[in-house]
Amino acid sequence: MKVLLTNILALFVIGVLSAQQPKVNQHRLEKRIFNLAEFGLQENGETERVAFSDADIDARNWVIKTLKGFGMGVKVDAAGNIIGTRQGTDSSKKPIAFGSHIDRVPNGGNYDGCLGSMAALEVIETLNENNIETNHPLEVIIFPNEEGGVMGSRAMAGNLGKSALSVVNSTGYSMGDGIMRIGGDTTKLEEAKRKKGSLAAFLELHIEQGGKLEKEKLDIGIVEGIVGLNWWDVVFTGFANHAGTTPMDARQDALLAAAKYIVAVNEVTNSFEGSQVGTVGRIKAEPGAPNVIPGKVIASLEIRDLSSEVIQKVYEAIKEKTEKIAKASNVSVKFLPLDTTAEPALTNTSIQKEIEASAKTLGLTFKYMPSGAGHDAQDISRFAPVGMIFVPSKGGISHSPKEFTSAEDMANGANVLLHSILSLDKKLD
Amino acid sequence: MKVLLTNILALFVIGVLSAQQPKVNQHRLEKRIFNLAEFGLQENGETERVAFSDADIDARNWVIKTLKGFGMGVKVDAAGNIIGTRQGTDSSKKPIAFGSHIDRVPNGGNYDGCLGSMAALEVIETLNENNIETNHPLEVIIFPNEEGGVMGSRAMAGNLGKSALSVVNSTGYSMGDGIMRIGGDTTKLEEAKRKKGSLAAFLELHIEQGGKLEKEKLDIGIVEGIVGLNWWDVVFTGFANHAGTTPMDARQDALLAAAKYIVAVNEVTNSFEGSQVGTVGRIKAEPGAPNVIPGKVIASLEIRDLSSEVIQKVYEAIKEKTEKIAKASNVSVKFLPLDTTAEPALTNTSIQKEIEASAKTLGLTFKYMPSGAGHDAQDISRFAPVGMIFVPSKGGISHSPKEFTSAEDMANGANVLLHSILSLDKKLD
Repeated sequence: MKVLLTNILALFVIGVLSAQQPKVNQHRLEKRIFNLAEFGLQENGETERVAFSDADIDARNWVIKTLKGFGMGVKVDAAGNIIGTRQGTDSSKKPIAFGSHIDRVPNGGNYDGCLGSMAALEVIETLNENNIETNHPLEVIIFPNEEGGVMGSRAMAGNLGKSALSVVNSTGYSMGDGIMRIGGDTTKLEEAKRKKGSLAAFLELHIEQGGKLEKEKLDIGIVEGIVGLNWWDVVFTGFANHAGTTPMDARQDALLAAAKYIVAVNEVTNSFEGSQVGTVGRIKAEPGAPNVIPGKVIASLEIRDLSSEVIQKVYEAIKEKTEKIAKASNVSVKFLPLDTTAEPALTNTSIQKEIEASAKTLGLTFKYMPSGAGHDAQDISRFAPVGMIFVPSKGGISHSPKEFTSAEDMANGANVLLHSILSLDKKLD
Repeated sequence: MKVLLTNILALFVIGVLSAQQPKVNQHRLEKRIFNLAEFGLQENGETERVAFSDADIDARNWVIKTLKGFGMGVKVDAAGNIIGTRQGTDSSKKPIAFGSHIDRVPNGGNYDGCLGSMAALEVIETLNENNIETNHPLEVIIFPNEEGGVMGSRAMAGNLGKSALSVVNSTGYSMGDGIMRIGGDTTKLEEAKRKKGSLAAFLELHIEQGGKLEKEKLDIGIVEGIVGLNWWDVVFTGFANHAGTTPMDARQDALLAAAKYIVAVNEVTNSFEGSQVGTVGRIKAEPGAPNVIPGKVIASLEIRDLSSEVIQKVYEAIKEKTEKIAKASNVSVKFLPLDTTAEPALTNTSIQKEIEASAKTLGLTFKYMPSGAGHDAQDISRFAPVGMIFVPSKGGISHSPKEFTSAEDMANGANVLLHSILSLDKKLD
């Protein structure tokens, strides 16, 4: 009986607290997601909006217009980041920033990046209509070309090198051309760089892009960090020979060795405790004819984890097992590290706690989890404390037109974002 | 002591017998192999002579001139087969035919097809210089475009359909254009067809294109038949998903299932007694990016054996095991039979015995063996009794500039061919 009373009391306290808090407008947020999806809408009902496309530029202009409509000062920095500023009451304070991206992968979905961007707009509108002033200035940042290599946030972190500018995406524009197209200026890229400590905090709301929250029926993911990733090309060299005349026991079959390697990647990755992932996504067998024993195979290897040490440990174990496989198969193997290496980026533990507190206040269930995908927050973490909030993705599907998050889940995330910003505004210097 | 005397007696008998037999000229045979290699000779010392190329046409003209120089009547049939005829003493007898092809795969070797062709010329020249007349007419047949699908022999068997004529090879010419280029006539292809029983026998000398004879230090392979082969495309369908956000236990990884299938093909094929071979030579994973779990994989399957039943048995076992793998991997699998299906072609047992007797008479070691590769003899067996003689390939290497057979091995093969023809001439109707 005592327990029941305590529970009722707790629910009452949560009810009072949450009634005191402003709430985002779920319907308005959902409508804005649908509005955004109209930029690049195809005849088949799907949206194509790769960075630098006309649809991307139109959508950016719509966002800029909306931010200005909120009474914000808006600028586009040299890398093409859209930055909307809402003044705080204390001009000595550093901004609290939040946002995400609106560009999409080819044949992508309506929520990846878009939710965090539209929720940022919704937070501003909610503050405005509730006449809430913050001590810190607030910055809404819409990062350009996230899908093509977190371009805007990388520039802010000072990590967008000249060589990256020549990379061409599916629009046919290079990153350099694209930056000029969206109102940036590649000759002044260093002006986009933010000093270490120049932001009080950065928060990003995002869909999970995995199936854990949905599976465990949880509302909110509190991101502990963004996993690091390493890529290798694994090259098996055997001897290409006639598939009809070469007996089974005289073969040096590079594809058979590669197949055993692929199985080993799965087994080794699963043999460690933790949530690391190991993937072989690309494979090429040469000469590649059904009647020739493959003499050479190149297969990829990707390992991701929140800890660089774990990545290294898994890699070493895969390498050791693969070298044994190769030896037994009478082929040679080489692991060639690829350029694509991203260090794990941990989120700020104080911000994690504020997100947790906000979720609790709002009566939402939550769990701490890593982000398996890269996000703009990853690069922002190099110069500012960051936090990330996840909401469920239906079926864990992302980078697909089937991507879906319910309006309620989106509003939950936006409310946690709003409340975390308000708490941080009170607590941060 | 008795044993020793018997052995000495046996050697003496072989010596006398073999002294009575005409022998090919090893040096002349080797020289002609080198001469042939000059047609299509590249600056790097290798020869390129794909069917229908200028080099192929030049080499064919040289062969025609050589045959005419031997006093043979020469014609090119509607499919482009070069047929040189040496009259026999009994005009009522059907011809004994022998030969091979002189076209090559791109970046091929000097012996595949070339040996059987040049040995046929050498047999005629040896008969001429020894003033040996045969009862049966002899036909030297040089088949065109063997490497592009045993074109000439298929036409002789009446199996060259209209659809094959549109197939284009690396020269850029279609088979139809090619036939016209080499002096055939695609409007009269049916004239190239030979009636069942119209040849007394057909013999083909060929390099083994495998490593068995060399490994076992044997001179001659007596081919029991040419293996049949079946091809399938094996299609695995899982679900393409983000390699960072999809936990290991939530994946439907089509490539992991395909890898286990490749291992199963090897294990199942090896689990049967016999010399069947099973090969996965081609694989395609989609979408094929290191950071995406493959949602679809298409891998080939080729099974070869002298027995259609064995092929079917091995296939069923692979299919059963693969379906279990797919089920356990939460992906689906389909086996799609491809058009490329060749029935096994057994050689004539009486001719096998004559080849064995010839090898014994010449003091050569031998073994009975299947041919893992396809040959023109395969299609000729549809309308005539055939025999095939193999000689060792160094390192088992073929379809490569590294292809090599020693002059002595070539002469051994040519002598067995010559003696088998002479024996058959005496014994056949």
